[in-house]
Amino acid sequence: MKATPQVLKGTRDFLPQRMILRHYVTDELRRVFERFGFEPLQTPAIEYADTLKGKNGEEADKLIYDFEDRGGRDVGLRYDLTVPLARVVSMYPDLVKPFKRYQIAPVWRAERTQKGRYREFYQCDVDIVGCTSMLADAEVIGVAFHGLRQLGFASFRILLNNRKILRAIANRAEVPEESAPATWRAVDKWDKIGPEAVRAELGAANLPAKTIDRLFELLDLPTEPDGVLRTLAARLGGEPAGLEGTRELEDVIRYLSLAEVPPEYYRVDLHMVRGLDYYTGPVFEVVVDKPKIGSICGGGRYDSLVGQLGQQDYPAVGISLGLERLIDVIDELAMAPKEVRGTVTEVLVTVFDPEHLAASIAAADSLRATGMNAEVYLGTDKLGNQLRYASRKGIPLAVILGPDEMSRGEAILRNLATGEQQRVERGALLSAIRGQSGATASPVLLS
Amino acid sequence: MKATPQVLKGTRDFLPQRMILRHYVTDELRRVFERFGFEPLQTPAIEYADTLKGKNGEEADKLIYDFEDRGGRDVGLRYDLTVPLARVVSMYPDLVKPFKRYQIAPVWRAERTQKGRYREFYQCDVDIVGCTSMLADAEVIGVAFHGLRQLGFASFRILLNNRKILRAIANRAEVPEESAPATWRAVDKWDKIGPEAVRAELGAANLPAKTIDRLFELLDLPTEPDGVLRTLAARLGGEPAGLEGTRELEDVIRYLSLAEVPPEYYRVDLHMVRGLDYYTGPVFEVVVDKPKIGSICGGGRYDSLVGQLGQQDYPAVGISLGLERLIDVIDELAMAPKEVRGTVTEVLVTVFDPEHLAASIAAADSLRATGMNAEVYLGTDKLGNQLRYASRKGIPLAVILGPDEMSRGEAILRNLATGEQQRVERGALLSAIRGQSGATASPVLLS
Repeated sequence: MKATPQVLKGTRDFLPQRMILRHYVTDELRRVFERFGFEPLQTPAIEYADTLKGKNGEEADKLIYDFEDRGGRDVGLRYDLTVPLARVVSMYPDLVKPFKRYQIAPVWRAERTQKGRYREFYQCDVDIVGCTSMLADAEVIGVAFHGLRQLGFASFRILLNNRKILRAIANRAEVPEESAPATWRAVDKWDKIGPEAVRAELGAANLPAKTIDRLFELLDLPTEPDGVLRTLAARLGGEPAGLEGTRELEDVIRYLSLAEVPPEYYRVDLHMVRGLDYYTGPVFEVVVDKPKIGSICGGGRYDSLVGQLGQQDYPAVGISLGLERLIDVIDELAMAPKEVRGTVTEVLVTVFDPEHLAASIAAADSLRATGMNAEVYLGTDKLGNQLRYASRKGIPLAVILGPDEMSRGEAILRNLATGEQQRVERGALLSAIRGQSGATASPVLLS
Repeated sequence: MKATPQVLKGTRDFLPQRMILRHYVTDELRRVFERFGFEPLQTPAIEYADTLKGKNGEEADKLIYDFEDRGGRDVGLRYDLTVPLARVVSMYPDLVKPFKRYQIAPVWRAERTQKGRYREFYQCDVDIVGCTSMLADAEVIGVAFHGLRQLGFASFRILLNNRKILRAIANRAEVPEESAPATWRAVDKWDKIGPEAVRAELGAANLPAKTIDRLFELLDLPTEPDGVLRTLAARLGGEPAGLEGTRELEDVIRYLSLAEVPPEYYRVDLHMVRGLDYYTGPVFEVVVDKPKIGSICGGGRYDSLVGQLGQQDYPAVGISLGLERLIDVIDELAMAPKEVRGTVTEVLVTVFDPEHLAASIAAADSLRATGMNAEVYLGTDKLGNQLRYASRKGIPLAVILGPDEMSRGEAILRNLATGEQQRVERGALLSAIRGQSGATASPVLLS
């Protein structure tokens, strides 16, 4: 006997009920992205390995699904949407700048699978290339903010930091250059493992006790937001990078307030470092506290990545919303609107017998013409079977057409949740359907 | 100096202008698919090689991008959407049947690249699993028909055939079983190379002259549609498969007429065979004559594929629209609606200077609140540069806000195509924008 086929661990099928929810989320995000003038871009799943590798350190390179194609070329599946964007920008110098694009697409990582870690997962990225102004940084943060609000996210925090500030702090604390990566990896875990564990990890990485103490002092910020930037400016006075980083954050915050992102949503958090090697300036992350799921999106400025790939440098900044995490939160907090059901079908039209099939098809066609999603039952089974099909699929309404109804120009409208039926004139069918609560057209799925 | 990075031959970047058109096409198709109650499904790009291979003969297997993953598993990128669907059906026996699903997604084939052949391309598939009735066959054909009509396709033909009829004809003509594949490969080229070349190819395949003559007689059909099925039934009387195939076509045609697919759009064409091994009954193909691009979609019934993958057989039928070919036709005949522009942005709001940035951001926000896609210029360059940016991107309108306008509660609305400007009160801005022809919101892009 054959084994039942499987999917590869870390990859998933999305059956209709899940896909309808995913479509709802990506449609809403796409709408918000386009509202702000971000344009769609699509890049191939397969890239030359040369393009993908060496952009984020050896650890990241190990996660690339690479292989040799039939022509003997070294290729791989993209592991993010930022590196392909950088390649696009360097390949098409005529793209009008600032180039504002979004891409909602799968990426692949040869990760050890564990809860919440997938080998194929979706990212929703917005980036602006060719703009040095912090207006761009504030805009991508603002777009993520509005996207989350549109999806009903109420309680989240946007954490802001700047790699230049971290560089200045490392300098001040006299962190040896070769210890910097380990230092920031440890600091990045602050929220997860707490300051004492961070201190232990820094000790284990052979940072001198004096350096660790100094680092802890420099990373400690006042709790009132107003004092943060002043404190930083004072503290990093002698460090040009520190001053520049502080000024950049100041600009980002000023522009966020112009964009009406309420101040209670964001704060400077020097412990938030972010993993990627390519960031050069502001970095940001959005975290939710309930459910305890951590970061749902992150990004930052990467002014040298395009230059790594092509002939010319371009300043760039972007943010990436993780679709899987967004969906986890939406599930956990039951945030999906009730129109997002388990099926796209709004009405099933039943079929009495082969002779009356034409009437059922015509009834479904006239409902479709009004924009409704209507199915005709594909057969002439007993009515009970047809209604059972509708119930099992979660279709909210059935239009039952028998010879009696047809001869009288009527139809029976059945609410499958309650079992209630009403006899309506065919001309009044549409308004009767619209009158059924929860059974109206669900444009949210598509528009 | 570094080389400019490239994409792999046969794969493509879709820059915004192309992506906006692709979104328009896939959004319209998705809407039509859902109108008929087809549900979205998504499967991983990577499948076990065992799932992919052996479904369509050795030639197809050679086209699979396969590789060994880091765990030493043999995997590959899907080469169509039908085999993954069959896997899903066998993995989830609880899926309510008939299971009607659509999937719009890329597939990968290690093809030799040539004009119109890509290594990564998109398919738009609808399938019905678990229904033996020809209602299902007619429905997937009908959905493709309505999808094409929705996209503005006017002149195309749906060709119908049935593998059972071909089997009966091969039997009657005494085609040796081992010669059947070569025979049908040759016949399938009828429209492309003409009957004489087909005859020559059959001769070269060592079919006896008598068999070839007999085959040509049997494949010849009357030109009036009404006579076709009668002729077939009479001609294949003694062949059970022939009679069954004829009855199936008869049913499909009857149901197509009930579904109001006009008869001038379809006809039986015994020369249309289709390449895939897994078809068992009706097969169909849609061809356009102008431009001379041939088949834009194809499908058929495959009642044994699910059983090949899992424990249980399920009847199934589906059709696949090739996105790349659809786009080629839409381009060639300039069929895209004028709302499908080169940019999603409908209005650029200019920025006078840093002090007046807040007003520009607020103006853009109020336009977005009405559903419009509005961009704020990301900087404080000279007005000329800002307007040049809008023109180069193809943004139709600019809202110009200077200190004079602001102090008077006005704005200047500029049509970037004509250069015309009008001074409007801020309260009347929205209706002035809507009044500009071609500059209205383009919901077609998203909804």
